Amino acid sequence: MKIARIDFGAAGGPQVTYGPLGEYAGLGGRAMTSLMVATEVHPLAHALGAENKLVIAPGMLSGTTGSMSGRLSVGCKSPLTGTIKESNAGGQAAQVLARLGYAAVVLEGKPLGNDLYKIVINKDGIQVIVDNSLKLLDNYPLVAKLRTEYGDKVAYMTIGSAGERMLLAASIACTDPELRPTRHCGRGGVGAVMGSKHVKAIIIDDAGAKMRPPKDPDAFRDANRKFVEGLRKHPVTGEGLPAYGTNVLTNILNEAGGYPTKNFKSGTYEGSSKLSGEAQAELEIKRGGKATHGCHRGCVIQCSGIYNDKDGNYLTKQPEYETTWAHGGNCGIDDLDTVAMLDYMDDNIGVDTMEMGVTIGVAMDAGLIEFGDKEGAIRLVEEVGKGTPLGRVLGCGATVTGKVFAVERVPAVKDQAMAAYDPRAVQGIGVTYATTTQGADHTAGYAVATNILKVGGDVDPLKTAGQIELSRNLQIATAAIDSTGMCLFIAFAIMDQPETFQALLDMLGSFYGITMTGDDVVALGKKVLSAERDFNTRAGFTKHHDRLPRFFYNEAIAPHNQTFLMKDEELDDVFNW
Amino acid sequence: MKIARIDFGAAGGPQVTYGPLGEYAGLGGRAMTSLMVATEVHPLAHALGAENKLVIAPGMLSGTTGSMSGRLSVGCKSPLTGTIKESNAGGQAAQVLARLGYAAVVLEGKPLGNDLYKIVINKDGIQVIVDNSLKLLDNYPLVAKLRTEYGDKVAYMTIGSAGERMLLAASIACTDPELRPTRHCGRGGVGAVMGSKHVKAIIIDDAGAKMRPPKDPDAFRDANRKFVEGLRKHPVTGEGLPAYGTNVLTNILNEAGGYPTKNFKSGTYEGSSKLSGEAQAELEIKRGGKATHGCHRGCVIQCSGIYNDKDGNYLTKQPEYETTWAHGGNCGIDDLDTVAMLDYMDDNIGVDTMEMGVTIGVAMDAGLIEFGDKEGAIRLVEEVGKGTPLGRVLGCGATVTGKVFAVERVPAVKDQAMAAYDPRAVQGIGVTYATTTQGADHTAGYAVATNILKVGGDVDPLKTAGQIELSRNLQIATAAIDSTGMCLFIAFAIMDQPETFQALLDMLGSFYGITMTGDDVVALGKKVLSAERDFNTRAGFTKHHDRLPRFFYNEAIAPHNQTFLMKDEELDDVFNW
Repeated sequence: MKIARIDFGAAGGPQVTYGPLGEYAGLGGRAMTSLMVATEVHPLAHALGAENKLVIAPGMLSGTTGSMSGRLSVGCKSPLTGTIKESNAGGQAAQVLARLGYAAVVLEGKPLGNDLYKIVINKDGIQVIVDNSLKLLDNYPLVAKLRTEYGDKVAYMTIGSAGERMLLAASIACTDPELRPTRHCGRGGVGAVMGSKHVKAIIIDDAGAKMRPPKDPDAFRDANRKFVEGLRKHPVTGEGLPAYGTNVLTNILNEAGGYPTKNFKSGTYEGSSKLSGEAQAELEIKRGGKATHGCHRGCVIQCSGIYNDKDGNYLTKQPEYETTWAHGGNCGIDDLDTVAMLDYMDDNIGVDTMEMGVTIGVAMDAGLIEFGDKEGAIRLVEEVGKGTPLGRVLGCGATVTGKVFAVERVPAVKDQAMAAYDPRAVQGIGVTYATTTQGADHTAGYAVATNILKVGGDVDPLKTAGQIELSRNLQIATAAIDSTGMCLFIAFAIMDQPETFQALLDMLGSFYGITMTGDDVVALGKKVLSAERDFNTRAGFTKHHDRLPRFFYNEAIAPHNQTFLMKDEELDDVFNW
Repeated sequence: MKIARIDFGAAGGPQVTYGPLGEYAGLGGRAMTSLMVATEVHPLAHALGAENKLVIAPGMLSGTTGSMSGRLSVGCKSPLTGTIKESNAGGQAAQVLARLGYAAVVLEGKPLGNDLYKIVINKDGIQVIVDNSLKLLDNYPLVAKLRTEYGDKVAYMTIGSAGERMLLAASIACTDPELRPTRHCGRGGVGAVMGSKHVKAIIIDDAGAKMRPPKDPDAFRDANRKFVEGLRKHPVTGEGLPAYGTNVLTNILNEAGGYPTKNFKSGTYEGSSKLSGEAQAELEIKRGGKATHGCHRGCVIQCSGIYNDKDGNYLTKQPEYETTWAHGGNCGIDDLDTVAMLDYMDDNIGVDTMEMGVTIGVAMDAGLIEFGDKEGAIRLVEEVGKGTPLGRVLGCGATVTGKVFAVERVPAVKDQAMAAYDPRAVQGIGVTYATTTQGADHTAGYAVATNILKVGGDVDPLKTAGQIELSRNLQIATAAIDSTGMCLFIAFAIMDQPETFQALLDMLGSFYGITMTGDDVVALGKKVLSAERDFNTRAGFTKHHDRLPRFFYNEAIAPHNQTFLMKDEELDDVFNW
């Protein structure tokens, strides 16, 4: 494996160099991106300037025959949060990049002039090509145009107009097996950093490359088989997610009173049943779409789907729970077709669906449009695509929108929008929102699992007891899983089934020819988090930033009539391990 | 003296209470606002929420017969910077408020509903009155309307449409002796905080009130006489400022290579002579305006002026140096009439002229308009007045504008725009920009005095030696002066003339019946800064925030071809006293 660096500030134009892994040997995914960013990027760098780097890294097991190993990590200093950032996505890119032998591709420096670049990566190496014909294309037409040149047997990573305009909520799209730009490194504005390097598209072609070979192929095959068995037998990964996707959570969170409604003003939504995973799956099947689909080859959970419009034509991927919530209940909108249209628009323009949904909720609170205004929400996202001043504000996310329109209720931590779980009804996820290195991010330590789904134990969501330890352990485990290239959803099975966790350890061990224990996983997770925390400290973040916005402490929310209860001193204990 | 508190969140509407000074006894101006905010406001409060307070405090000597004692301090948590904030202005308000016996008037809580209030303060007490007829009036028409009701023998404090819209660069206007809303608490968005309390105007009527009596009237009169003599004999306060106003600095800074041009891309400006104080004074006199004028009664420096339009009609006050720079050379505009029009518009809408000028420069860098586009600059400020999405962005200042339009070169510290001195050519002011508790603020420790004007000694502006100690001492002295109610311009005379400094000490001592020494002044300054630093620390600010933007370290500037040279460790030493 090797690391490729592309210096866009080089005299005479972008220059590619290849090198060994060196101090980054053995790392992958989030471990690779976070260690490299923490080591090489000035913590006070302007995130859109020459001093920032965009690190693209497949996981430790990406490119192998191991199931679920197709997550790609993208890391940098975030222009949205100012913290270190790792944003990961499914799709095809990680597998393909890893098979070509890249442990990381790093975009560095800043180009002079206005030329737009595409990067072609194949078995012959890396080419950086000026292609101004791609300017301001959004993701769907962009990929369609690229396919006429590079075909369908490659993976595409692209930015839409939002990334090119360097909007702070801009994402990087990765194509799924059907070449649709639907799997996004969504969070933290990584698309803006790609845009700041003037890189519009990365085309990754693994023709001629092979699967990465394990040190012990038999043991690897055996471990992978047990791993798949474990995923298939767990009720979440074997039943709930395949049948209804992540949106299985709508009814569950609404019943738990943790479904943030109309910009976090209530914990239950009267229209939630219309947005549920059950309703969504039924509609998808009726219209000839799919309720069960994998976002990358090698996935056995298949939580994705295909959402067709009323005429049975492809509209977008199956919107995730968090997207359906953000554009749905959070905006008082109970219509799946509107949510799906907004999901498509976000993917096309290239913005984080969660950040956009929360931003529209903030804009509704500001009075720009009414809660429940479906056409209004679509009109606002259209503005983002057009790049009007209003669109640029919205495309910069909830915090900037809150500042510009003087809204006090902005559900964000470190300037990143929260997800679909109210921390007053699910105290554990509040601990994660507050303390994660990433800005509010439910995936960084998904305490919803144990607070609500009762996976990995049972911690009362309305009480403070046990939440710190829960979030701490989940954040450590997540940092490790995000480094393997494994989809985070494997966590449901490995938290409940020791033999499935052992199978994962054996996959890692047999692939690298080492012995891998649970302690090693914990050590890896801690190493990643420590590097991230260190970067953030040097960037000026303190314990005072590890707090929720004040309104969560001051405003009780229905139905539990409760505020966020965690004490500051408790939050400060999360990283005392 | 007493403290009045108005609780806008009280059941049944705003409620006024009066109380003794208690723990705040002996404090005034910045000492009063900063100690009270640091003590009473949650450091993580939303600046536009119920938990923030707007503290309005005349200085320790305001309301006396002492010369130059008419500065009013306004303090709060800043919505622009997130730090503690003290913003002070001249005009009539401080004298009048102090004579009525108020050491502070504090706006607290947040009103329900949309009613707009005016506050009338007179010898009978404080009345809070709903007056929705004032909605969205800008400062000039607002004061004109109020004058029909309250006449010309009162002082007005008002916000324009920007404050009402809670834009982050919104100011609070104080009327001058001619009842013009030209003296602004400009910095840090204090007008937005007043707007968040729904307070449109404060009418202060001291009819029936008397001068505040000194403990030792004879000694006070004698000290005041010596103080005035000292101001009249110093070349800056006795000649330069009266003749040309603050704009005497244009030629001086341009010659020193420290005049930031076209959004901080050069240190000299080819059009500077057209913007100079000399040219301005000549034009003002020619058109029947005034080049010498006091912003409040009791001023002996008279650095203000009256700027008439081509037809000899009043247009605006004499634009300050920083305004002329911000809207002039910083935007590549070399036309005094354009600058004066922008000054008038800023005052009328109620936004900080420095923040707006720097913001327009950032917008020019983003390509919204070209550098030098006079009509374009006026059009952009018109947008602010209209409250369009673009106008709201611009009205939120340089940092928000830089985020929304993806501009890397944003000359701001802690999200507040720098002033008219490039820190690469005047290293001492860079130390102040970086380390002051207020966000970039030249007045917080005006090292330009000793770096360029050679007042209070001579420290080479291009070298690092002596800058830390200089900025430290100036920041301490400034915090004390800002507490006395004295105009900061007295500093030129008291730094060079020991007998004038002694006269100031004697004024304070004879007024309060104490002995006041230089050490006492230093102790007062340190007490204020310590409270401010403590608040900022609890709000999450660290030494990593006490830095300039990276481009000052990475881009050398003409003519000295030099970067900002101060080491991080040196900056961290400013508050080690």
